[in-house]
Amino acid sequence: MNAIQIEIVGLIAASFTTFAFVPQVFKIWKNRNASGVSISMYVIMLIGISIWLYYGLLIKSVAVITANIVSGLLQLFIIIFTLINRKNEK
Amino acid sequence: MNAIQIEIVGLIAASFTTFAFVPQVFKIWKNRNASGVSISMYVIMLIGISIWLYYGLLIKSVAVITANIVSGLLQLFIIIFTLINRKNEK
Repeated sequence: MNAIQIEIVGLIAASFTTFAFVPQVFKIWKNRNASGVSISMYVIMLIGISIWLYYGLLIKSVAVITANIVSGLLQLFIIIFTLINRKNEK
Repeated sequence: MNAIQIEIVGLIAASFTTFAFVPQVFKIWKNRNASGVSISMYVIMLIGISIWLYYGLLIKSVAVITANIVSGLLQLFIIIFTLINRKNEK
């Protein structure tokens, strides 16, 4: 398997895990809350994703870099959305 | 940065993202349901994690392999737990 084929495997993996995460993002959007999970957990997740992104750059893995940029943006959306919503509730 | 240091960065990333996922697993355990997210999404996630694991083996990344074994086990736990629970509710 050559380098491009390997990256395609990684990108397929990334498509599955990102696609499976999307309904949860929609659910948070629809229910106007982050599923009762504390926002600090989303922040910890975002820190983890940022380190994954750094790791992806170090090992030059297109799949790891792409997956973590997309997941990072979704996670950032959840955090900002939850914070705006929390502010409006006060 | 040498190969071992790079893997340590990856494992730190894996610790953060896995640690952030644990409260959700506990929540599902406590509430006796998978947060209303359909089980098919967890199956898609598990397929994605399996492909990530395969990708990790292809690129020989200890961090990707470790992270996906742990996440896969957690995901498997959620699926089995939800199925058992669904059966009991009938």
